[in-house]
Amino acid sequence: MSKTNTVIKLAMASKKAAAELSALKTSKKNALLLDMASCLERGKKRILSANRKDLKRARKSRLSSALTDRLRLDERRIKAMADSLRGIASLKDPVGQVISTRKRPNGLRINKTRVPIGVIFIIYESRPNVTSDCIGLCIKSGNAVILRGGSEAINSNIAIFDTLQKSFKSFGLPTASITLIKRTDRKVVNTLLKQKNIIDLVIPRGGEGLINFVARQSNIPVVKHYKGVCHVYVDKNANLNMAEKICFNAKVQRPGVCNAMETLLVHTDVAARFLPSMIRKLKAAGVEIRGCKKTRLITKGIKAAVETDWYAEYLDLILSVKVVRTLDEAITHIAKYGSMHSDAIVTDNKRNADKFLKRVDSACVYVNASTRFTDGGQFGMGAEMGISTEKLHARGPMGLEELTTYKYCVFGNGQTRQ
Amino acid sequence: MSKTNTVIKLAMASKKAAAELSALKTSKKNALLLDMASCLERGKKRILSANRKDLKRARKSRLSSALTDRLRLDERRIKAMADSLRGIASLKDPVGQVISTRKRPNGLRINKTRVPIGVIFIIYESRPNVTSDCIGLCIKSGNAVILRGGSEAINSNIAIFDTLQKSFKSFGLPTASITLIKRTDRKVVNTLLKQKNIIDLVIPRGGEGLINFVARQSNIPVVKHYKGVCHVYVDKNANLNMAEKICFNAKVQRPGVCNAMETLLVHTDVAARFLPSMIRKLKAAGVEIRGCKKTRLITKGIKAAVETDWYAEYLDLILSVKVVRTLDEAITHIAKYGSMHSDAIVTDNKRNADKFLKRVDSACVYVNASTRFTDGGQFGMGAEMGISTEKLHARGPMGLEELTTYKYCVFGNGQTRQ
Repeated sequence: MSKTNTVIKLAMASKKAAAELSALKTSKKNALLLDMASCLERGKKRILSANRKDLKRARKSRLSSALTDRLRLDERRIKAMADSLRGIASLKDPVGQVISTRKRPNGLRINKTRVPIGVIFIIYESRPNVTSDCIGLCIKSGNAVILRGGSEAINSNIAIFDTLQKSFKSFGLPTASITLIKRTDRKVVNTLLKQKNIIDLVIPRGGEGLINFVARQSNIPVVKHYKGVCHVYVDKNANLNMAEKICFNAKVQRPGVCNAMETLLVHTDVAARFLPSMIRKLKAAGVEIRGCKKTRLITKGIKAAVETDWYAEYLDLILSVKVVRTLDEAITHIAKYGSMHSDAIVTDNKRNADKFLKRVDSACVYVNASTRFTDGGQFGMGAEMGISTEKLHARGPMGLEELTTYKYCVFGNGQTRQ
Repeated sequence: MSKTNTVIKLAMASKKAAAELSALKTSKKNALLLDMASCLERGKKRILSANRKDLKRARKSRLSSALTDRLRLDERRIKAMADSLRGIASLKDPVGQVISTRKRPNGLRINKTRVPIGVIFIIYESRPNVTSDCIGLCIKSGNAVILRGGSEAINSNIAIFDTLQKSFKSFGLPTASITLIKRTDRKVVNTLLKQKNIIDLVIPRGGEGLINFVARQSNIPVVKHYKGVCHVYVDKNANLNMAEKICFNAKVQRPGVCNAMETLLVHTDVAARFLPSMIRKLKAAGVEIRGCKKTRLITKGIKAAVETDWYAEYLDLILSVKVVRTLDEAITHIAKYGSMHSDAIVTDNKRNADKFLKRVDSACVYVNASTRFTDGGQFGMGAEMGISTEKLHARGPMGLEELTTYKYCVFGNGQTRQ
């Protein structure tokens, strides 16, 4: 049999498993998740040994220290993965939930009812905990999942996957409920991306190149998890002390992630009071500042920001800073250069906050809080399949609900249409 | 300026209008909808005269009588269009609705809030009432809309559009809120389908060729409104009298639409009692029957169904009939040959009904009612943008809620992430 046929057979098996998973009782799913958590903890030696292989290869291939850090597992991180599965077990099962119900004049009762999506194909990079998080979320929401992790984490992913697969076997569930693509070339991915009659949703998480590749190749609906060019806007009515803490956190606490601030916008009325101290503190934390003309007038010794800076997702200790004359200018800047991910306003003015919330067309819009909270765990979703930058189907952190769709269940007693 | 540039400018104007529409007050939107309804009724002479031009061309080009009927307007149909707009005005505004709210341990309040999608591009065929229905739904849900109707209805569509545009002008709203593509070649469509940074959603409604064309060309998310291969399954525990009425209605009342029954499945235990009388009545109504082997043994003089019949959306007075041995066989048949649109079971057995509801993976699943109810109006949505056969974002009739997405509005008092 050709390789293509093998891949299609594998996807067909996922589809068959999905039908079984969709009808699984909540209690069984939760017991499975708890068992998976224990298996992870009991299997930590094997997982850590596999992870060491990946780390060794990472050193050889001179992977950046940021990526190596994301790749690294230790006992604490394995415990966190297990706890995440336990957290998912404790969440409400979305499947079967009646979203709304209507009784029609002719007596028909129409229930809009949550159901699993079916087969979900996720393509991701580096962090091995994504493997167990995604398996946990997909199973709880009644979906079969096909995973394709990055080559740099292949040994860790295989070890985690094999460990979790044991739970499925001991619960008598089809092994095709979860599938890990162990080949790391793109041929298998290419074939899977064409199976629109078998796979229901593709989620690419990773760099721009990966996402564009998937969007181009796929004939299956794609929910993109794209970049985060996040802004904090310090309003003229801001509590500047609070603004400083929020901006520092949004930039410095973990600069390599998508919800970190990349551009700081400051109202001109408070710029001279706010920027010197803010920039001093950021510089002290190792942040390189690239400023607009006004910023550079206010604070000396700053590199000039160029047009490409405003579009940049640095994922690093670099920050572009722009002074704006009005709230509207801030909103217009975000609309032009942002990526509709996470943007914040710091203000004590309720009208300005409302306007920002309404007019900024991003997945997550914050008033007086750091953009760093855009995260499934922080949002109380247990974990996340990623953070959607699409407007359709799901926006922002994707948790259990976002892994479901709905059907209309219509109950009659012989109604016919006139 | 090139034609392509003109088209992109037009789409940019829609995007700008969308921002304004998203912030429109409910009361203003409702007043606008009521004014549009009056304008339609006052403008009926012009609309009917334009429609006569289309009908004349239809005769010349020998359009089928079914399509000509869909194209035809009269006073009653214009009244129905106006009433549909009034119905939309009476529905709850989905924009701004808080879908769910979470308070996190750190004090953050996270509101999942409904917002408009932005710019919606709908491509449709024949029925001119779609023009006013879609404009009404998009405006109420705060979206700008670009419409591209079929060439056969171009005069009617222009007349309806121009009439409604007057309301937008008199309410001081941007004329780019609604845009009708008056050129009926595919060049403009091709250009628009590539504007993923301007247009947020494409909805094609029409034949298979149109939908495949749009899906292939578009780099914008597409919600397909595809065919309906709908089934009614008569269970062994069915009330056969009720089953006969439901099947007759599902096939005969309006055979040319997507929610009409195309295949009848009958449990073998009741086939001999049910089929002879059912088939006699269908034949008397002009229905051509194509049966499986067993059906042809039970009722003489019936054409044999071939494999392609089970996949067929006849949209005509033709019905394929199959006798099945079990409920599972019916479910498997629907999974293989159906289009996940609308399927019904007739049964008095609650367990069989539940199993059918759970296992049949269609947008609308019925117990003891005709599939013909799959319709925005019948579902109480006022009207519909169409009936989605996708699983992502929206399934079944698309009304106001399905024309929205959401954003997370997060309220803090200085929270930073640890």
